[in-house]
Amino acid sequence: MALNKKPVNGMKDILPYEMEVRDYVTSIIKDTYRSFGFTPIETPAMESIGNLSNKQGGENEKLIFKVMKRGEKLNIPEAQTEDDVVDFGMRYDLTVPLCRFYSNHANELSSPFKALQIGSVWRADRPQRGRYRQFTQCDIDILGEPSNLAEIELILATTTTLGRIGFKNFEIRINERRILKAMAAYAGFSEEDYDSIFITLDKMDKIGLDGVSAELLEAGYAKESIDKYVELFALLEGVKDVAAGMDVLLGKLGEFLDAEVADWMREIAAAVNATKEAQFELVFDPTLVRGMSYYTGTIFEIAIPEFGGSCGGGGRYDKMIGNFTGQNTPACGFSIGFERIILLLMEQGFKVPGANKKVAYLVEKGYPAEKLAEVMSQAKEARANGQTVLVVRMNKNKKFQKEQLTNDGYEEFVEFFNR
Amino acid sequence: MALNKKPVNGMKDILPYEMEVRDYVTSIIKDTYRSFGFTPIETPAMESIGNLSNKQGGENEKLIFKVMKRGEKLNIPEAQTEDDVVDFGMRYDLTVPLCRFYSNHANELSSPFKALQIGSVWRADRPQRGRYRQFTQCDIDILGEPSNLAEIELILATTTTLGRIGFKNFEIRINERRILKAMAAYAGFSEEDYDSIFITLDKMDKIGLDGVSAELLEAGYAKESIDKYVELFALLEGVKDVAAGMDVLLGKLGEFLDAEVADWMREIAAAVNATKEAQFELVFDPTLVRGMSYYTGTIFEIAIPEFGGSCGGGGRYDKMIGNFTGQNTPACGFSIGFERIILLLMEQGFKVPGANKKVAYLVEKGYPAEKLAEVMSQAKEARANGQTVLVVRMNKNKKFQKEQLTNDGYEEFVEFFNR
Repeated sequence: MALNKKPVNGMKDILPYEMEVRDYVTSIIKDTYRSFGFTPIETPAMESIGNLSNKQGGENEKLIFKVMKRGEKLNIPEAQTEDDVVDFGMRYDLTVPLCRFYSNHANELSSPFKALQIGSVWRADRPQRGRYRQFTQCDIDILGEPSNLAEIELILATTTTLGRIGFKNFEIRINERRILKAMAAYAGFSEEDYDSIFITLDKMDKIGLDGVSAELLEAGYAKESIDKYVELFALLEGVKDVAAGMDVLLGKLGEFLDAEVADWMREIAAAVNATKEAQFELVFDPTLVRGMSYYTGTIFEIAIPEFGGSCGGGGRYDKMIGNFTGQNTPACGFSIGFERIILLLMEQGFKVPGANKKVAYLVEKGYPAEKLAEVMSQAKEARANGQTVLVVRMNKNKKFQKEQLTNDGYEEFVEFFNR
Repeated sequence: MALNKKPVNGMKDILPYEMEVRDYVTSIIKDTYRSFGFTPIETPAMESIGNLSNKQGGENEKLIFKVMKRGEKLNIPEAQTEDDVVDFGMRYDLTVPLCRFYSNHANELSSPFKALQIGSVWRADRPQRGRYRQFTQCDIDILGEPSNLAEIELILATTTTLGRIGFKNFEIRINERRILKAMAAYAGFSEEDYDSIFITLDKMDKIGLDGVSAELLEAGYAKESIDKYVELFALLEGVKDVAAGMDVLLGKLGEFLDAEVADWMREIAAAVNATKEAQFELVFDPTLVRGMSYYTGTIFEIAIPEFGGSCGGGGRYDKMIGNFTGQNTPACGFSIGFERIILLLMEQGFKVPGANKKVAYLVEKGYPAEKLAEVMSQAKEARANGQTVLVVRMNKNKKFQKEQLTNDGYEEFVEFFNR
């Protein structure tokens, strides 16, 4: 049977240049997060299907790649439903596995626990340009920390990392689920409608204030509430400073907004602004929703000007670990859009800094074996001096070979002839 | 539904200490192999099921985790066989994916191409202590190099890496499929029996020369051939030097052994011995078989005294890429037993050298928010000076918290009280 040269549909091979960029970015990420006390951990690629289909994953649960039962447990002719044939699922994110990991190992981990995960996830999404069915996620999470020290550390660690990768003039947009709710309550919407209202609000950057207003009207909400709601956002337009935003909201919302929530946000902003390393702005964004239903408090998102959309985000999810342990554990995480960052760097022709000088030794065919050891010794010495040395046979078409090697970053050629 | 805290059967969570060792070993591997001109690449975790079931994978093909079709392509009640429900398989090694990768991208790669792969593979093996159903493989391969420059570079790169991880006094055992065949031919066995004879020969380290002899006799081979065969191995016993081994064989086997094969082996040994960095011995082992049927020439294996068995190996497989392209391409690879190395280092209580000093800042609950920025500034400065700084809330049970952190490698504690 002829074999298939292509990767499976929607997944990709990673070629040398991309790997070089990925490895470089990964090393910056690991070094920086480690210096903040985050500890790398890893979980298997597969999880019990029950853990993945617990309704916390939202739309992602429809995209699970499912792994079949084996041996006696599998009887295909008799099987009627997926339950009869499915054993495991491929993880679609790193958050569900982290919660399982923590519930399994809490006794062995210090508390609070600061986790770093970099790993592949799989989603059977419709393949499209730049989006693949296997991709890398890069998450940091702080488990067991109820105070906003978690948010502060997550934002500082993430932005420091982005800065060291080379990004500047970006924004971290921040909001709070409790602020979202307070604004909706002030406007007079009913609590059961919040989720659907927030879905519309989430489109603000695309359809604008008028668009949001029109869509809410069309959905049948009361004109009076919509006007009151929209007025709030108009009032906050251009207010980027978190403390200033809290002043506006406290003045306007009155008892609908708990003063503790405003303090919580102010404290995060004060600590982050006073100690940040990277060049970025922490921006209050009352329209920030973040889709995942598991967020319970602070939410944030990275906006890099070179991108249209978000380049990562996260927030507080204090109720998820309780699904495993029966006891809620404070949790807060921040995920960097790893694949987007790589794509952007590659499009900019990013050159990995501080890489070894690359030298190719071309050895003519038939070069005397007894002299080969000398070539290898020379290579050994050059490697010890920090060079990358490729020892290869000289091809018949030496010109083409050198062109290829030049493309691969080789700057110098040493030739060994049979004489 | 109650969620499952455990990883799926036969797979494992990787805890902080193990991750630290894994990350350290990975960085040595990547740095060293890169300096030899090996280029990291990556392929997806899944492959077309046809690529994985092409009979090259031997026993591993029985251990494939299979991923189900989705949507309209899947009709479970009507399905009769696996073909009706299976779409992809999880890769069980990195060699089949590499050959597919190379056949797909040869035009974009320099020739010869030196690949480095570190990645997870999956095998539905019976779970047992220290063996998992998901584990990391670490392979280097040289594609498109017909000369023994490939073998020399692979052995030097692998042994240099092992040396830098900290191993010494290990052995690289080397043999050649053509030598195995020449010895069997000299003894008078028929070619169709070679594979079964080699399976017995492979047990030499367990059952000894007498055991091999007895097993061959029991299998019904001619006593005369067996005696002649066994005599060869007796003659070579204690002959570890490759060149000396070739002298013995050339003198004994006469025309059965091509002089070119002996030269091939001598050249490898001469170049490796003259230029090796690590403390190891290259040893001719005429009983080395290596199970995989795809090897066509040189084969080698790592033996580390602290281990019983092999800790990695490889060889030349010149016919495998041809299964994808229709045209054979010389190929040779060497795989390090990554998981075994990690296990061994952990058992020895390996401490990662040159790690940052780890300092924990414990911040009392209710610490004034306006002073928190000072704590974060102090942490920032310490991190800039190469420390790992963990900023966490002080727990009620501070003594226990410090014990945990000490276990995690924290050496110094700075406490911030509400005063």
